[in-house]
Formats: sequence, C-alpha cells, structure tokens
Amino acid sequence: MYIPFSFRPRRDRYVAVMARFVTGCILAARAAARWLCMLLPMAVCVGSLCALFLWLLDRVTDDRLHHPDLLYALPLAGVAVGLTYHVLGRQAEGGNNLIVDQIHEPGGGVPLRMAPLVLAGTVVSHLFGASVGREGTAVQIGGSIASGFTRMFRLTAREVRTLLTAGIAAGFGGVFGTPVAGAVFAMEVLSIGRMEYSAIVPVAVAAIAADWTCHAWGIHHVTYTLPFRGYPDAGGTAFHADPLLLARVAPAGVAFGLASLAFAQAVHRLGAVFRALCPVAWLRPAIGGVLTIVLVFLAGSRDYLGLGITAPEPGGASILDFFGPAHYAWSWLWKLAFTVAALATGFKGGEVTPLFFIGAGLGNALAPLLHAPVDLLAAVGFVAVFAGAANTPLACTLMGIELFGAADIVYLAVGCFIAYLCSGHSGIYRAQRIGTRKT
Amino acid sequence: MYIPFSFRPRRDRYVAVMARFVTGCILAARAAARWLCMLLPMAVCVGSLCALFLWLLDRVTDDRLHHPDLLYALPLAGVAVGLTYHVLGRQAEGGNNLIVDQIHEPGGGVPLRMAPLVLAGTVVSHLFGASVGREGTAVQIGGSIASGFTRMFRLTAREVRTLLTAGIAAGFGGVFGTPVAGAVFAMEVLSIGRMEYSAIVPVAVAAIAADWTCHAWGIHHVTYTLPFRGYPDAGGTAFHADPLLLARVAPAGVAFGLASLAFAQAVHRLGAVFRALCPVAWLRPAIGGVLTIVLVFLAGSRDYLGLGITAPEPGGASILDFFGPAHYAWSWLWKLAFTVAALATGFKGGEVTPLFFIGAGLGNALAPLLHAPVDLLAAVGFVAVFAGAANTPLACTLMGIELFGAADIVYLAVGCFIAYLCSGHSGIYRAQRIGTRKT
Repeated sequence: MYIPFSFRPRRDRYVAVMARFVTGCILAARAAARWLCMLLPMAVCVGSLCALFLWLLDRVTDDRLHHPDLLYALPLAGVAVGLTYHVLGRQAEGGNNLIVDQIHEPGGGVPLRMAPLVLAGTVVSHLFGASVGREGTAVQIGGSIASGFTRMFRLTAREVRTLLTAGIAAGFGGVFGTPVAGAVFAMEVLSIGRMEYSAIVPVAVAAIAADWTCHAWGIHHVTYTLPFRGYPDAGGTAFHADPLLLARVAPAGVAFGLASLAFAQAVHRLGAVFRALCPVAWLRPAIGGVLTIVLVFLAGSRDYLGLGITAPEPGGASILDFFGPAHYAWSWLWKLAFTVAALATGFKGGEVTPLFFIGAGLGNALAPLLHAPVDLLAAVGFVAVFAGAANTPLACTLMGIELFGAADIVYLAVGCFIAYLCSGHSGIYRAQRIGTRKT
Repeated sequence: MYIPFSFRPRRDRYVAVMARFVTGCILAARAAARWLCMLLPMAVCVGSLCALFLWLLDRVTDDRLHHPDLLYALPLAGVAVGLTYHVLGRQAEGGNNLIVDQIHEPGGGVPLRMAPLVLAGTVVSHLFGASVGREGTAVQIGGSIASGFTRMFRLTAREVRTLLTAGIAAGFGGVFGTPVAGAVFAMEVLSIGRMEYSAIVPVAVAAIAADWTCHAWGIHHVTYTLPFRGYPDAGGTAFHADPLLLARVAPAGVAFGLASLAFAQAVHRLGAVFRALCPVAWLRPAIGGVLTIVLVFLAGSRDYLGLGITAPEPGGASILDFFGPAHYAWSWLWKLAFTVAALATGFKGGEVTPLFFIGAGLGNALAPLLHAPVDLLAAVGFVAVFAGAANTPLACTLMGIELFGAADIVYLAVGCFIAYLCSGHSGIYRAQRIGTRKT
C-alpha cells in the first residue's frame, strides 16, 4: 500500500490516490477473506484431530499403567505399525522431513493418509510403552491436512508453502497449547540460522485457531508451576536478570546443547546401524521393542516409558517431578537411551516430549552442582534441549514464556540461545536446510 | 562439533574422536572468552551511557515542565544542534541508517563522535520540547561504541557485523530495560521479512549486560500496569485467547499498521518537502521548532511535547493515561503531527517512544468502538505501531511480554503481526533491506 504525497497537490491526483487506496483495501479484504476460508477449516480439522490424539494418549497411557504386561508385546506392536506403513504408507513414511521438503520445493504434496496412519501408529506405540513424543504426530497431522486443502484450491507455489507451514503451526500449537510458539516454530524449523516470515499472519491464525479448537473439545494441557520468579530489584517492581545466576545458567545451556547434539547424533547413527542390521524396515521396530524391555530391566524402572509427564507412582522420575525438590542424577540419560531405542528403530511419535524430559531431568541433575534453583534449571532445560535439537531457539523461548510465564524470560532465552549455539548443524530434522552457519 | 560413531569401533579411532572433542571444547572456550572480552566492556560502556542519557532525560523533562517558556527557544535550539552536527558531525549525520549500512557492508565504520553528539543533541531537543524519542539515540550510542571496539581488535568482516549488531542490541536493551527484545530487535531490524541469527548469543549477552549496567546505575524504568489478564477458561488454570476478543483485536491491528504506514510516509515525504524548502540542513530544525510552537497553540495542550510517558498535569494525555479509563479520541493524531514536525526537520532522538504514544493512544481511541478492554488495546497498540513502522514483529511481541507480562501474549502477537503485514515496505529505517516481501 503506497500512499503518495506531493508538495503541489492537484485535485485529480488526490482523487486517483484515494481511488487506489480504496481499491487496495478491497483487494486486501478479499485476499484476507480467501485465506480465512482456507485457514480456519484447516486449523479446525487439525485442532480437532489434535484433541482426539491427546484424548487417546490419555486413555492408552492409563491402560498401559493398569496392564504392565502390555510392555512385552511392544516388539510385536512395533512390527504391526511397521507393516501397516509398509502396506498402506507410500510416501507417508517420510514423516516430518517430507513436509519440510514439500515446503522448500512444493512437488507431489503430503499424502492425506499420513494423518490417520501417524495418529494410530503413535497411539499404539504409547499403549505398549515406547518412549516417543507427540510433536511429530501433530506436525504430520497438520501437514497432511494442510496438503489436502492445497489440492482443493488453485494455489501458487508460494501459497502452497504458506498453507503447509500453517499446517505445521496448527499441529504444534494445538498439541502443546502454545499457539505463538507454534507459529514461530513452523517458520523457524525450515532452516537453521535464518527465518523468513512472509507467512507470519496466516501461520499465527492457524496456530491460534487450532489451539482454540483443541481447547473447545475440553482438552486441558498440563500446567507446569515454576515458583522461581527471579530476584526482585531494590525497588521491588521491575525484574532484571541476576548476573551471578545467569553465569550459572550459561554452562547449563552448554550442557543442554551438548545433550541435544548427543541425542540427534545417537538417533541418526544408531538408525544407520539398525538399518544395516535389519534392512527390512517394518521388522526393525522389533529390535527397538526388545531393547526397550531390556532397558526397563537394566533401569529397574518403568518411568521412562511413554511420555513421562507424570510418574506411574509417587517418587518416580517425571517431567513434573523434576520441578520439585527431589534430585534425579541420571534420569535424563536413561530417557535418552529409551527414546533413541524407540526412534532409531522406527517407532512413530516424535522427539519433543522426550526432549522436554531429558532437558528438565538434566536441569534437575545440574541444579545442585551449579547451586541454582532446581525449578528454574528444569524449566530452562525443558525448552533448551529441544531448542538445540530442533534448531529453533526463538520458538522455544516463546514456548517457555507460554508455559512458565514471563518472569524468567532472560534465563529461558539465554538457555535456548546457548543450547542452539552448541548443538551442531545436524538436528533431529534431516530436511532442515542450513540458512546461516552458527559460527 | 561432530562426534562420529562407528558400528565397528577401533580403539585408536575412539582416542582420535576424544582428542578432537577436547580440542573442539578448548577452541570453543577460547573463542567464548575472546568474545566476552569484547562484548562485556562494550556493553558496560553502552549501558552506562544509556543510564546517563535516561538520567539526563529525566532532568531536562523536569526542567522543561518548570520553565514552559523554554519552548519558544526550540527553533534556536534546533539550529544550534544542527550547526554542531554540521561543524563536528561528518558521517555521524547518517544516524541509524549508517549503522545498518555498516552491518550489511562493513566499510568505514561508525564514527565514535556519533555517541556524544546524538546524546547531547537529543537531550537538548527534549529540554526545549521537541517530540522525539530515545531509541535512535540509544542505537547510535551502541553502534558507535561498538564500532570503536571493532577498531581495537583485529576482526573479520563477519565479526565486525556481529559486534555492531550487538551494539544495537545493547543500546536498545539498555534504554528500554527489555534485553530479550533488544537482542531480537538488533537482528530483525536489518532486513524486512527475514532474520538471520548466527549472532544470537553475542547479541543477547550484550543486551543483557547493558540492561544490567543501566540498572546497576540506579535507573528504574517506568512500569506499565495491564490489569487485563485474559479470560480464564472453565478450569480456571490455563489461559487461552478468546476468539471474539481476538476478532476485535485484529481490526485494531490493521489500524495500527496503517498508522505506522502513515507515520513513516509522512516523515519521509515531509522530510523531502522540507529539504526542498530549506536546502541548508542545519537551518531546517528551525522550521520544526516553529511548527511545534504552532501545533501547541492549535492543540491547546503541551501534552505532545517530549516523551509523553507521563502528562504534565492530571487529566492530560500520556502513555500511562491511555491505559486508564479516560477516552482520548485524537491524541494519537496530534502526537503524530508533533513527531513528524520534529523528525522531518532533523531533530535528534528517534521514533520509538512517540510511536508507543501513538499506538497506545490509538488503542485507547479504538477501544470503545471495538468494545474491547482499553488497557489491552493500549498495550497492543503500544508495541504494534512500532512493530509496523520498524518491521520488527517478533522483537515487539517480546517487548510486549517484557513490559506487560505473558498473559496477553496471543493478543500482543496478533497485533504486532497484523500491523507488520499492513505497514508496507518502507518503514522508518531507510537502510533496512527487503529480505522477503510481505505479500
């Protein structure tokens, strides 16, 4: 919209300017209405599927806790999911990477079958106790539904890209209840070190509408309580970060970044090892299932199965417990092993909730060593390990704010930024491109 | 950092990997120490100058209120500042644009004299009542001090760029007390629609250290109170944006974006007119001074002089008052006129605090029309008009969070994103490049 202004006005010129302005407004309103007609139904679909997914997750997690023997069927369940993908999946096997690729170079699109397949596959994985997450599923639901919508309208390549990005945002925002983080995540995850945000408004609309839909279905997200609210200054009003405490959060940020690096490398490299060991893709989850059972016996605990947001019994390790006073020195490493075993062998679900667990657990483990408040380090680790592994420091800072409030924003930002810097260039998403190198 | 993992390990290979990891850690620690040695002294200098600047601003604003006749000397004061720049300024006249240019293409650097000149020039402008801001001054202090530091070390072009960006972040974070927003602003302001964040950690360190320094000098920033905290959901715990209220905030976002567009266009186009009217640069502020005096008589109020954070007398228009119950229908337009008169004729200071005023005032004016809470729309306008004018939607969302808390994050983000979309491609910083077009 360009509103010229001239030193020597003429009446007809003003009329022309006004006409152009009005025409511009009408065109803009038409474009906005058209986008809303695409975005809102898409986001409502994605949000509803996220709600169904979260509801099912709650059900199957309960079932798993009530029937511990289900664990022994995990290898079989994995093979069943693998076989289903083998028979019905086609390109759906590509998962998150296929969606990111389609945004970079719109081509064949994302198959609609990806949504039901990944939803069912993840729910089955969780029922039998695989240590997997939720974001992969949500992002794939979002991407495949959005891709379905792109086929219903006549769109340019740029519009296809925008709608797919909005699908990712809707899935992420809906499943975690963090719409602003979801919007920024969708734009930030495409490349390392560079973010383009021409799609900022459609992406935010999709994330907010999906979150709202998920919420309207009666889904409540877990509330994390972070009593630490910084040290108020002398005046008692404004909050400023304490430099001594920041000097303790910074090395924790390095540890979070190295944990992301270790996690991503372990998934990629062990994945290659398992592919060499067992070239038949659908059989591979059996290895992961057996490994998970072995790990349960080695750890002597079932706390590392499933999402791990709450512990099966009091005193166990879980994300919520990491914010409390109890000390868990090695829980984060166990969770890392369980998750790598599941993901490197092809279980469905995603990495993010296990990364929350690893990060919060590592924060809990480091707090006494660094003489820092446990809840603060758990919160910073929660978002920072994910920031390092997904190379999305800004989205994770915003997620921290949406989950834990604004009081600790400086610590959250410092943790996420340093973890991002220290996590190398090959994160959990292989299709991510390098926009600008980190150093 | 690349940690190889092989399926058939050999002992010497492990040793080599460990040696590489340790060497990598030592190199990284050395690089971090070197950067801290550059960044911390730079940020402490910038933060201290910001503290001095804010302290002086408080003093001269008090003086101006106690000596109303100072206003009549504004044309003379402007000419004095213009003459000083003419005699001593050299490239310092380039201001913010020179710094952004030097980041895009490192060349001659930013002269050190820019810092004292812009500081003194802004303080004088405020003493006599020009309607200018603070961010330009802070950014120029940061950029010129940082450029001075680049000359003390042997740096590559990329490192020069990082240090200059850190200087902007230090100035912005210090002067507004919003370090995270300052860090993101410095990276986001360089291009429209694209952000590169390879410098994310140094930039954040500089912004935090400068903010902390400014704070250590005893400077307290104004606290804005935003009682509106969203509508809690049925469970009373989690907060989700209300779709009906969002549907009212969205058109306000369009209005904020159009206000940014009008502001930027008015400054650029009237600037051209004044350059044609009076080719002698140092004489031009006299026009702005006379215009300001005329505007005071037309408006019948002195509320639009200076920063406008608090009103000279109870019941006046000010940023803080816009959050209250009183209605101000046209204050934003008056402030726009006052600020364009000052900036288009070459007064020093910057645009941002007047943009806060215009945004909060427009939010206050729109609230009854849109049946939305006044304090919420004032807060959204506060950051959104600036987001549109500077093309920095993410930094402004973070600034909103740092100033008003996290509860209204969705409204703040939607306001900033929509204002950004509607504000066109020529913002207040002419040196800003177009990374990705908005539509």
